[in-house]
Amino acid sequence: MSKVSSTVESVRGFQVAGVHAGLKKDGALDFSLVVSEVDCAAAGVFTRNKVKAAPVLLDMQRLEENPQSIRAVASNTISANACTGAIGLKNARATANLVADALSVVSEQVLVMSTGVIGTHLPMEKIARGVELASASLGSDWRAAAAGIMTTDTRPKLGSIRVDTAAGSYTIAGMVKGAGMIAPNMATMLSVLVTDAEAQLLDLNSSLSAAARQSYNRIVVDGDTSTNDTVLLLANGMSGVTVSSVEELEAFQDALNALTRYLAQEVVRDGEGVTKFITLKIVNAESEADAERIGQTIGASVLTKSAFYGSDANWGRIMAAAGRADVPLEPDSASLWVAAGESVSSDAPGLQIFSGGMPTDYREEDAAAIMAEASIAFTLDCGMGAGDATIWTCDISHDYISINGDYRS
Amino acid sequence: MSKVSSTVESVRGFQVAGVHAGLKKDGALDFSLVVSEVDCAAAGVFTRNKVKAAPVLLDMQRLEENPQSIRAVASNTISANACTGAIGLKNARATANLVADALSVVSEQVLVMSTGVIGTHLPMEKIARGVELASASLGSDWRAAAAGIMTTDTRPKLGSIRVDTAAGSYTIAGMVKGAGMIAPNMATMLSVLVTDAEAQLLDLNSSLSAAARQSYNRIVVDGDTSTNDTVLLLANGMSGVTVSSVEELEAFQDALNALTRYLAQEVVRDGEGVTKFITLKIVNAESEADAERIGQTIGASVLTKSAFYGSDANWGRIMAAAGRADVPLEPDSASLWVAAGESVSSDAPGLQIFSGGMPTDYREEDAAAIMAEASIAFTLDCGMGAGDATIWTCDISHDYISINGDYRS
Repeated sequence: MSKVSSTVESVRGFQVAGVHAGLKKDGALDFSLVVSEVDCAAAGVFTRNKVKAAPVLLDMQRLEENPQSIRAVASNTISANACTGAIGLKNARATANLVADALSVVSEQVLVMSTGVIGTHLPMEKIARGVELASASLGSDWRAAAAGIMTTDTRPKLGSIRVDTAAGSYTIAGMVKGAGMIAPNMATMLSVLVTDAEAQLLDLNSSLSAAARQSYNRIVVDGDTSTNDTVLLLANGMSGVTVSSVEELEAFQDALNALTRYLAQEVVRDGEGVTKFITLKIVNAESEADAERIGQTIGASVLTKSAFYGSDANWGRIMAAAGRADVPLEPDSASLWVAAGESVSSDAPGLQIFSGGMPTDYREEDAAAIMAEASIAFTLDCGMGAGDATIWTCDISHDYISINGDYRS
Repeated sequence: MSKVSSTVESVRGFQVAGVHAGLKKDGALDFSLVVSEVDCAAAGVFTRNKVKAAPVLLDMQRLEENPQSIRAVASNTISANACTGAIGLKNARATANLVADALSVVSEQVLVMSTGVIGTHLPMEKIARGVELASASLGSDWRAAAAGIMTTDTRPKLGSIRVDTAAGSYTIAGMVKGAGMIAPNMATMLSVLVTDAEAQLLDLNSSLSAAARQSYNRIVVDGDTSTNDTVLLLANGMSGVTVSSVEELEAFQDALNALTRYLAQEVVRDGEGVTKFITLKIVNAESEADAERIGQTIGASVLTKSAFYGSDANWGRIMAAAGRADVPLEPDSASLWVAAGESVSSDAPGLQIFSGGMPTDYREEDAAAIMAEASIAFTLDCGMGAGDATIWTCDISHDYISINGDYRS
């Protein structure tokens, strides 16, 4: 397995485009297409929000009824097409129809994704213009496609990874948008992943679920779960490499995990107003689910995130957030370390600041020096069991408030 | 029942003091005492955070073992005495011992409360100074006592209510601190409530639980539940009025509800960096608990709070937050209204902006005019059942980030 690349050269049989359909006022790219020249097996994971956007409802239905012959994914920004009722579903379907006509496939082969303001109807004339422009400019410009799904993102986020096998090599590539409304329970955002490997639908579904669990579901920007979160994985088999044995599936899973982890971390790095990248390594909780819950609660604590922003080693807020995660936690058994950097080994977790129910005799200036860094890793040993999980999160800054105080204007 | 007054004249048999013990660097009041000249029956509700501060653990134990003869409550700021292990418990007990000595009572008759930075040990010399000064200046200055428990609060928060009965009148009075780390599950903060009525311990406990449920547990400033949340209710019986019949208990509950609701709303109004007071009236959820949960999730949504701050009628964020509250919700059955002001009647909930799964044809400028107000009330009709709950919350501003970015410095 090679390393994750931050670019996408090309993936056999896939073409993409990102165009300006007139949705964004500033002329920026705002509509994307990902198209396969042959039918794909496709898997998806979606928001667990009870208020699901029309494109989410449509895609869930299509992947239920017709998961073996997907040909395209169309994405628009500016309007989330959520809280739009029957009109919203009609517009989502109409978008798919337009794409199907342009590509000479049937509508059921097209998936759609939307992001933007909730409660606004899709401007269908502009959507039609987007379909027309995008289908006429299909190629290998993944950076443009990734730019075409951005909202408050400051840069396109894309990546790829190559897997070499005895039968040849295949690629997994993808793009993601994030920025705000980022929280676990389908942590996202929109993400399209494609591969030219051939794989069984069942395997694709379980691989995508496992990959999402250790990537998109382990990031927190602001604790808000979107109505539109969608991650899609399309496999067209055009590399001629089949992934089916246990070993082949393992290699595929490893590569997909690495790519989605990279893309998820990119979402955190490019979160709204983010100035710090925070790694929360929770170890020895009663279970993995408990560790995840503790990390997510700390990551969503606005009080803790404010302290990160202020470079304040106010670690008591971390312990207070851990304590309200609604899972077993015994402060007297817990220990907390802090270190500079993006990750830490269990052997050298850094400066210990809390142990046996009380602060250690660490020097405040040592903690302050670490907190001043742009990347900080905390290790919380719960001393309860063997459940581990790592969550990636960020600080909350003045810019977050500014961005979200007048997002619509 | 009279109306809640924002002052406290005096409550028979209770004396209070707020002094500067040297804990705060700026010379402000930082230590408080509330003392009864006779034994009190006392009830308490405490944080549900797994990481409980030493004073919480001590008070829980004392109210379990000795709830019928409480004489005093001592409170300090600057240090929360949380995450301080065995030393913290020793210091909490030592504080009570000092108060007991000064008042010539036994230590078990004294309760303690702390607020401030987590993970710092109580500076016992300053605490001793506080006890000495406060016990020497006991009187009826409730404003000073309420100021002595403030942290980032901008003003003391206190109130009282008089209940007239055939047997005479009694008073319930109290004070509260809040400002940050304010979320449900004992929403608070520190609050001491006293009454000169006489009541059975069992009745006091159930009255306090019921009152807290509809007041302190229904406010959200930032979604963070503190390690130190404590509400105490002391009844010394010195008015000569006994509260025991169903009617008497009802009148007592009504008065206690009104007072705690007033104090809880004061906490929201004086929340860190708050510029808007938001009422979230959730009606017709499947159950009252569901309605509460939906309101609390909206109230804790930093994305929604940012929109409030920006006076942005971005109501989709309210629906998105409601949808991730993890309780049944069917967007097509839901309706949302917005109105200016602090409360709305069910008959006239204001401007309807969402209905039948999609936006109404409301005029954007009408919604914008309401959102520009300092007090805004939303009514979300879930259309599911008969569960109602009202949550009071606020916006999140640049000042919140500034205050919490460098709280310790």
